[in-house]
Amino acid sequence: MILTVTLNPALDLTYRVGRLLPHRTHRVSSVDERPGGKGLNVARILHAAGEPVRATGVLGGDTGARVARLLDRDRIETAFTPIADETRRTVTITDCDATGFWEPGPTVTPAEWGAFRARYLRLLGSVSVVVLSGSLPRGLPVDAYARLIADATAAGVRTVLDTSGDALRAGVAAGPDLVKPNTEELVALVHGAPDATPPRAAADEGAVARLAALADAARALGAGAVVASAGPDGLVAVTAEGSWHARPPEVVTGNPTGAGDAFAATHARGLRDRTPWPTVLADAVALSVPAVAVAVAGAVDPSVAARLRPSVSVTPVLEEHPAC
Amino acid sequence: MILTVTLNPALDLTYRVGRLLPHRTHRVSSVDERPGGKGLNVARILHAAGEPVRATGVLGGDTGARVARLLDRDRIETAFTPIADETRRTVTITDCDATGFWEPGPTVTPAEWGAFRARYLRLLGSVSVVVLSGSLPRGLPVDAYARLIADATAAGVRTVLDTSGDALRAGVAAGPDLVKPNTEELVALVHGAPDATPPRAAADEGAVARLAALADAARALGAGAVVASAGPDGLVAVTAEGSWHARPPEVVTGNPTGAGDAFAATHARGLRDRTPWPTVLADAVALSVPAVAVAVAGAVDPSVAARLRPSVSVTPVLEEHPAC
Repeated sequence: MILTVTLNPALDLTYRVGRLLPHRTHRVSSVDERPGGKGLNVARILHAAGEPVRATGVLGGDTGARVARLLDRDRIETAFTPIADETRRTVTITDCDATGFWEPGPTVTPAEWGAFRARYLRLLGSVSVVVLSGSLPRGLPVDAYARLIADATAAGVRTVLDTSGDALRAGVAAGPDLVKPNTEELVALVHGAPDATPPRAAADEGAVARLAALADAARALGAGAVVASAGPDGLVAVTAEGSWHARPPEVVTGNPTGAGDAFAATHARGLRDRTPWPTVLADAVALSVPAVAVAVAGAVDPSVAARLRPSVSVTPVLEEHPAC
Repeated sequence: MILTVTLNPALDLTYRVGRLLPHRTHRVSSVDERPGGKGLNVARILHAAGEPVRATGVLGGDTGARVARLLDRDRIETAFTPIADETRRTVTITDCDATGFWEPGPTVTPAEWGAFRARYLRLLGSVSVVVLSGSLPRGLPVDAYARLIADATAAGVRTVLDTSGDALRAGVAAGPDLVKPNTEELVALVHGAPDATPPRAAADEGAVARLAALADAARALGAGAVVASAGPDGLVAVTAEGSWHARPPEVVTGNPTGAGDAFAATHARGLRDRTPWPTVLADAVALSVPAVAVAVAGAVDPSVAARLRPSVSVTPVLEEHPAC
C-alpha cells in the first residue's frame, strides 16, 4: 500500500471559453471539476494503474466535502483529517492556453496539525511508501514534511518528497528516500535562489552533466536519491547506485504538473517494489508522455505509457564534471 | 411578505488579483463567496432593509448546498426545491475592472419544475408581491415566468419581472405588474432585436422622451408598468398613473447589476405598500447609488440611500412624441 499526503488539497475547476478577454464576461462552455493538489493526482494515477493507494491530508468546509465526494466517486480510498477552514479552489481558464487562479487556501491550526499527525502515525503501520506532495497550507511549520519523513523513517516506511522552496529545503534535511525537483526547484535548493542560467536544455551531454552535478549537490543535503525532471528531455537521476539520464523517444510538451505527478507515482511504486533504477526511470518517462498530453493533471492513460515504454532510452551519466 | 423567485441561482465567487494576465497563473489575494443570481440579491437587499422576505427557486448538488448555507448564515428565509443537477458558479476576477466567467448551470427536469411550481403555489398564499428575476435554466419552458405570473395574479399577488430576451417577451404577455428592463433589454423587447442606436444618454430631454416612448410600447405588450433604467441617469417610468424621469443628484458609475437589483427590491416594496410612483422612483434611485458603488451585487448600505434620498429629482415626462 502507498500513502499519499496532501496537506493543501484543492477543488480544481477547469473552464473552457472561446477566448479569454480581460474585463469582459464569458459564458463557460464546459466545466471540469476534480480533486486537486499534487498528492491527489498521484493517488489517482496509482489507482488508475491498479496499485493499492490511500490518500490522506486535511479537508475543510463545503469545498473539502466536495473534494471528498469526488474522491469517493473515483473510488479512491481516503483517510483525511477535518479542518475548520475551507479547502481552497483553483480555477483554470482554457482557451488556446491556460490561465490559472489559485485561492489562498485555509489556515491549519496547531490542534488540527496534531490530529493529522496522530492519524498519519497510525496509517504508517499499513503502508510501505509515503508520497508527500505539494505546498504547505498556512499555519503549518516549515519543517512539517521533515517531521512526517522522520516519522515514516522511524516506522520503516520509504518516502518520496515533491515540494519546493523552504518546505523542500527543510524536508531534504530529514533524509527522504527520493526527491524529484524540476530544474528551477533544484537550482533554488542548491544555490538558495533561482540561478540566472539554469541548465535548461538537457539534450546535450554537457547540460545533462550539469544537471547531474546539481542533483549530486542536492543529494549531499540529505536525500537518498535525486531525480531531476529536465522538462521535455526526461529525467536525470543521481542515486547511491549510480546516475542516469532517461529520455522519451520524442519531445512532448504540454502539462508539466501532470508529468511531475506521473513521475512521483512511478517512483513510489519503484521504491515499494525495489525496482532497479534504470527500469523505474524508463517507466516514469513513458508515463509522463500521456500525462503531459492531457490538459488536466492526474488523468493518464496507462496503455499509452505501455506502448511507448520500449522506446525510452536510459543511459548512465558519466561521473566527470561538466566541461564548462 | 415579499417572495423572490430565483430559478437559476449561483454561487458567486469574486477573486481579487493584482492584474489579470492571460496565460499566466495568479495567486488570488482575497476570495469573496456569496449567494448569487438576481433574485437572491433582491432578497438580501430587502432583508438588509428589514423587510420580511422569503427566497424560493431551485438548488442542486454541493454548490447548491453551499448557497443554502450562505443564505442561512445571512438569516435569509428560504424555501428552495432541490434538483439533481449542480447549481452553477460564477467567477469574477477583479483587478482594475471585472472579468467574469459564468458556468452553464444545471438542467431542470419537468418533474423538478412541477415540484417547484407546486411549492410556489403554496408559498403564494402568504405573500403580497413576487419578484421573478434572472435567466431561466436549461430545461424550463420559455414561458416559465409567464406561468408563474399567471399563478400569482390568480392568487391576488402582484408581480415584478426582471429578466431579458425570450423569457421577458413571454413573461410580459402574462401581464406582470412591473417590468424593469435596461435600455438594451427594452429595445430588444420592443423591436425584437438590439437596435443599432439605443437612446443611451437620458440626460437630454429628447433621449428621455425616446426612452419613455419605448417603455410605452413595451407596456402595450402587457406589463402594468415599465420602469426602464437609463444607466447612470436614473429611471424612466411609464405607468397607468403617469410617466416620470427620476435622476440621481450626480452621475454614479460602477456595478449595474447591483443597481438593477436595488431597483427591483424597492419596486417590490412599493407595490406591496401601494406607494405613489414618484416616491418609489426616488427611493429606487437613491438606493441605486450605494448599490453601484460596491463591487459585489447585493451589498447595499441603506443609510447611504437615506442620506441621498432628498437630492433625487423626479419630473413628469411630457406625453408628446420625441422631436426626431
